[in-house]
Amino acid sequence: MTTAEGPSDDGVTLSQPMTIAQLAELAGVSTATVSKVVNGRSEVGPETRALIERLIHEHGYRPQRRRATSAPLVELVFHALEGEYPTEIAKGVEQVAREHQLAVVLSELQHRDTPGKGWIEGVLSRRPAGVIAVFSGLTEAQRRQLATRGIPLVLLDPRGDPAPQVPSVSASNWNGGLMATRHLLGLGHRRIAAITGPDYALASRARLDGYRTALDMAGLPVDPELIGRGDFLIEGGLAQAERLLRLPDPPTAIFTCNDGQATGVYRAVHRLGLRIPGDVSVVGFDDLPAVRWMNPPLTTVHQPLTGMAAAATDMLLKLAQGELLAQHRVELGTELIIRESTALPAG
Amino acid sequence: MTTAEGPSDDGVTLSQPMTIAQLAELAGVSTATVSKVVNGRSEVGPETRALIERLIHEHGYRPQRRRATSAPLVELVFHALEGEYPTEIAKGVEQVAREHQLAVVLSELQHRDTPGKGWIEGVLSRRPAGVIAVFSGLTEAQRRQLATRGIPLVLLDPRGDPAPQVPSVSASNWNGGLMATRHLLGLGHRRIAAITGPDYALASRARLDGYRTALDMAGLPVDPELIGRGDFLIEGGLAQAERLLRLPDPPTAIFTCNDGQATGVYRAVHRLGLRIPGDVSVVGFDDLPAVRWMNPPLTTVHQPLTGMAAAATDMLLKLAQGELLAQHRVELGTELIIRESTALPAG
Repeated sequence: MTTAEGPSDDGVTLSQPMTIAQLAELAGVSTATVSKVVNGRSEVGPETRALIERLIHEHGYRPQRRRATSAPLVELVFHALEGEYPTEIAKGVEQVAREHQLAVVLSELQHRDTPGKGWIEGVLSRRPAGVIAVFSGLTEAQRRQLATRGIPLVLLDPRGDPAPQVPSVSASNWNGGLMATRHLLGLGHRRIAAITGPDYALASRARLDGYRTALDMAGLPVDPELIGRGDFLIEGGLAQAERLLRLPDPPTAIFTCNDGQATGVYRAVHRLGLRIPGDVSVVGFDDLPAVRWMNPPLTTVHQPLTGMAAAATDMLLKLAQGELLAQHRVELGTELIIRESTALPAG
Repeated sequence: MTTAEGPSDDGVTLSQPMTIAQLAELAGVSTATVSKVVNGRSEVGPETRALIERLIHEHGYRPQRRRATSAPLVELVFHALEGEYPTEIAKGVEQVAREHQLAVVLSELQHRDTPGKGWIEGVLSRRPAGVIAVFSGLTEAQRRQLATRGIPLVLLDPRGDPAPQVPSVSASNWNGGLMATRHLLGLGHRRIAAITGPDYALASRARLDGYRTALDMAGLPVDPELIGRGDFLIEGGLAQAERLLRLPDPPTAIFTCNDGQATGVYRAVHRLGLRIPGDVSVVGFDDLPAVRWMNPPLTTVHQPLTGMAAAATDMLLKLAQGELLAQHRVELGTELIIRESTALPAG
């Protein structure tokens, strides 16, 4: 048995990934140094590291024993650990990982967009089966570092526009916004406000566009005054709802782009001495487990967070086993759950 | 330099932990077999495994290179991934672990008391710095398996009575129950109900005992009719509150042993067309982030979950480094947070 260390005889030498020994020769450093870079250890100078990273990127890297190098771990990266959302996601990832005898490693970015240097070094040294980034992303350099080591990445509920080659799982956000708004229109509402998430969140923009289209198809103009820019946090929902409900011609219904903001809307309505749905109808988005216990129980768009997390983990494990994905971008369906926070408009 | 492989000359041969080679000789098996058992691999027959486990338990096990064998991981085991509680805990563990360049491995027991076989095998093969079990425990056999490998265990918010030698972190549950009930007594309430957690949860029993003592010190009897047995879930709080509020002589205040149940109480009060605090005052326990946004904002006993998680991780890392703990059982203080769900009794 021979291992193909030399160039292949079909002339395509460059397309053949290189071993540590070959990379070391090319870079003019020891194999130990290349090995340190490959394994994410920190005792290598920045210039040498950059050189080796570039060579790996250009030529590819072929571990000596391919599959044996991956540890039975899945990395799960959260933008923030806040509320019920991370719990619902973690449950789905943990379930699928457990079925495959994989452990789940949890990280939090404390509201940052992308992980820092310590995180990527940790991941490279752990050599997981793959990485799932939730409502967050990786820098291009970090994505390359994973790719050159054959560590797959899947984005779950992507925050912005995923890079074209990165697989992702999301929900039918646009359709959810459409359904929510059509439900309110069907009840007879005409002044319907929307409270969005942050501008950079494509999911929130899609939900708002569904709202716009529903209004447009009903022959209603979009009143810019009725669109409040939120931040996906309770506080933002509260502030926007207080502004909206104090307008000279206030809305009779509010569609909020997540359930957290709906909690803020409930608080604002209560503070102003108004009632849901008597004075104002409210529709949320997410259907987190607690919202069925709100007073009144929240009508909301169900986003299957645990199912999305399970789907992302399935995709990741396929990629880790070298399989091709049937679909690169998966969008799970959303569903309108009608409870008691929506009714006919007053008057 | 010599490594003390033979019996020491002070005659205390049995107290000296054994190497894999010594255990293999004693068990009459290969070193590879002992190594498999030590590392949690599954390809060893149950009888051989039991024999080797017993020898390790009796004689102790001394790894060849002590610290190098531990991976930079902390295992975090949740009884269940539900609501905001796991998020608050995970945040604290992740924070301290990150500062020490350790990754956090997440497991869920799907409401079971103790983890299964797959879990312990996974942990032994990962060789983490330590294990934190949240509102859960390990079987005696699992604890022994960790102990013989030098993997420390800390219980966080222990579910029942921790085994004497197991370090644990909890909150001043009894004092929290006392403060909650005294607050209601101070407002003039005399018929004060309590909704407990499950019987096996010592934390809930301590909270109820604090309630009893507060009543006793105020010269009031405990009315068994006013004590509802809950389950720490929203549904249980709802069912008990509906029963209590329909009594011929209903309570004017309810102390629930966690915030989840308070959510159920709010729902029951709303369904019966009553008002908080006008008709009934409510005090919770936990102070999860969302309860300040309830309508009205919940008066509750703050339990520093994130701080408890950080303290447990600190203890674990001390133990992993072979340090002794100043305190084996740590109880962090609770604090009454007065919001708007409590007021003078009606009439």
